[in-house]
Amino acid sequence: MRRKIVVLIEGNTHPRSAKTAINMVRYCPDEVVALLDSSQAGKTAGELLGVGGNLKIVASLQDAPLADTLLIGISPPGGELPAAWRRLLLEAARRGMQIVSGLHAFISDDQEIAQAAAKSGARILDVRKNNEREVAWREGINQKCLRIHTVGNDCNVGKMVVSLELSRALVRAGHDSKFVATGQTGIMIEGDGCPIDAVVADFVNGSAERLVLKNQHHKFLLIEGQGTLVHPMYSSVTLGLLHGLAPQGLIFCYEPGHTKLRHLKNFPIPPLRDMLRLYETMANLMHPCKVIGLGINSRNATAQEAAYERARVQEELGLPACDVIRDGPEPLMDAVLRYQQELGL
Amino acid sequence: MRRKIVVLIEGNTHPRSAKTAINMVRYCPDEVVALLDSSQAGKTAGELLGVGGNLKIVASLQDAPLADTLLIGISPPGGELPAAWRRLLLEAARRGMQIVSGLHAFISDDQEIAQAAAKSGARILDVRKNNEREVAWREGINQKCLRIHTVGNDCNVGKMVVSLELSRALVRAGHDSKFVATGQTGIMIEGDGCPIDAVVADFVNGSAERLVLKNQHHKFLLIEGQGTLVHPMYSSVTLGLLHGLAPQGLIFCYEPGHTKLRHLKNFPIPPLRDMLRLYETMANLMHPCKVIGLGINSRNATAQEAAYERARVQEELGLPACDVIRDGPEPLMDAVLRYQQELGL
Repeated sequence: MRRKIVVLIEGNTHPRSAKTAINMVRYCPDEVVALLDSSQAGKTAGELLGVGGNLKIVASLQDAPLADTLLIGISPPGGELPAAWRRLLLEAARRGMQIVSGLHAFISDDQEIAQAAAKSGARILDVRKNNEREVAWREGINQKCLRIHTVGNDCNVGKMVVSLELSRALVRAGHDSKFVATGQTGIMIEGDGCPIDAVVADFVNGSAERLVLKNQHHKFLLIEGQGTLVHPMYSSVTLGLLHGLAPQGLIFCYEPGHTKLRHLKNFPIPPLRDMLRLYETMANLMHPCKVIGLGINSRNATAQEAAYERARVQEELGLPACDVIRDGPEPLMDAVLRYQQELGL
Repeated sequence: MRRKIVVLIEGNTHPRSAKTAINMVRYCPDEVVALLDSSQAGKTAGELLGVGGNLKIVASLQDAPLADTLLIGISPPGGELPAAWRRLLLEAARRGMQIVSGLHAFISDDQEIAQAAAKSGARILDVRKNNEREVAWREGINQKCLRIHTVGNDCNVGKMVVSLELSRALVRAGHDSKFVATGQTGIMIEGDGCPIDAVVADFVNGSAERLVLKNQHHKFLLIEGQGTLVHPMYSSVTLGLLHGLAPQGLIFCYEPGHTKLRHLKNFPIPPLRDMLRLYETMANLMHPCKVIGLGINSRNATAQEAAYERARVQEELGLPACDVIRDGPEPLMDAVLRYQQELGL
């Protein structure tokens, strides 16, 4: 049954902090009925976030009376629940609304909210809650399934969007492809996946491998990456995913002109060529693998700048490159199909 | 107060599966009063494990009436509790004995055992239980503290033992050094540390950094490594630790003649030189770092073979090398002291 979702953003309208909200609006347009931001009520999602057109911003749950689901639309570092939002979640639980959260702090662990939900019959869906307890055995892998993994040079450079757009493009073209979600937003959109960054460390590689084992009846898996190998905070998650998936191909995602890591002061990002070599080195420890294309995130560039960067990087690295939102996913889809032929799958 | 510990091994006498038991006997000889293995009762620890001399093997808890602590002496992949051992833990809980466990499956989550412990007043110490929730901020690091991290080419090659022996040797020589434990056995011996492989993935790098922040008032930190960067199961933990600690120096541990990874079928270990380059590449993403010595685990070699390997590898790689158990830790301690001088700390 289709949900009627209010996405809570409450003051977080920056493209990075509203990442979950933006992508819910973009990829589940039939389900999102409103955004909740008491400081921006009356505006439209198009005005505020650049997606969603006339979708309305409301000031309170009362202003979206038909909604049956409240979804938390931010993913802050650390994953904690902003204290001011508790009141809203409590209200939603009392109204019998389903609560969907991707935070590390589980909403279902909040006794008052959990009790209110139990009383009203509301469901609390903590997307990051998991009980992964398998290590990676490197057995039973279907080598006829092409595993394409998106990686990148920082958080929030478009790995999920590239995976999703590519998989949808493959399906539209008649291929048997699946987008494999590894983060809370992807899971909220796709309805399944593994919240890899919330798995107990010993089982990170194993839970990534399980994603492959569960989905390898498809011909193509487009598996979203997390973080980056060079991020002091999150490299552990990135490598566990890369090694557990043991992909045959990588698509490297980056944002031109973005030279320092997010979340940290003055932590420079290595040059593209070095990043590609690093990912290929680490991936090849598990399985023969190469970078087959580049996903450019040109959200902050003009059309002219984006076209220039695309030509420049294709020339410099000899790889197909495009912005899947601006240019469409076809150039990268063609790269995936060519690679499948090259491998004889 | 000194504990009186019975170490449960029950059929696990192989040096790898009895790793925790062997190292408890080796490093806490004043606290371990017996080993429990119903199939080997009457033998001595020296006969069974090669450490502990005349320490006795008992068949049941009744045979060690003065013991106040039951410690689980194995670390199986996956960390689950062998079903047959539950009965024993329940008996220990009923007798009011403290239970110490490093398994991923928490003993305190077993309702029957927990209730028995609550009734008798026994304490259950699940060493892997943690609530780490900090990411790595790369701030406040004391650059005058020398962080030496042991890494290796597989699990169970001696990373903990090298760290511990080196730190104890430094202290004996009058230096201010601390062994920093990152695994259950190390924590049981040292009394503090972080069970890094049991931390939620997003916080692995952060909890490693917190180990540094908490201990950097010492001049030397000898921090045990986990797994290896090339292990399909555990590479995520290894990298998170390496990046979170951001060490200035590494000691590379290996077992000569061991060419395939444990726990897996036919997974070859890359050559030493490649492994050293890999670790230096990954470590230098966070902080200038180099390998300053090699810890050889020659438990399966003759004295002659060990001496040959030591000479060979020192010649080939131009680094000091020794087996800290067979040769003593002094050659590696000297390497640490020289490196401290070289860095001007």
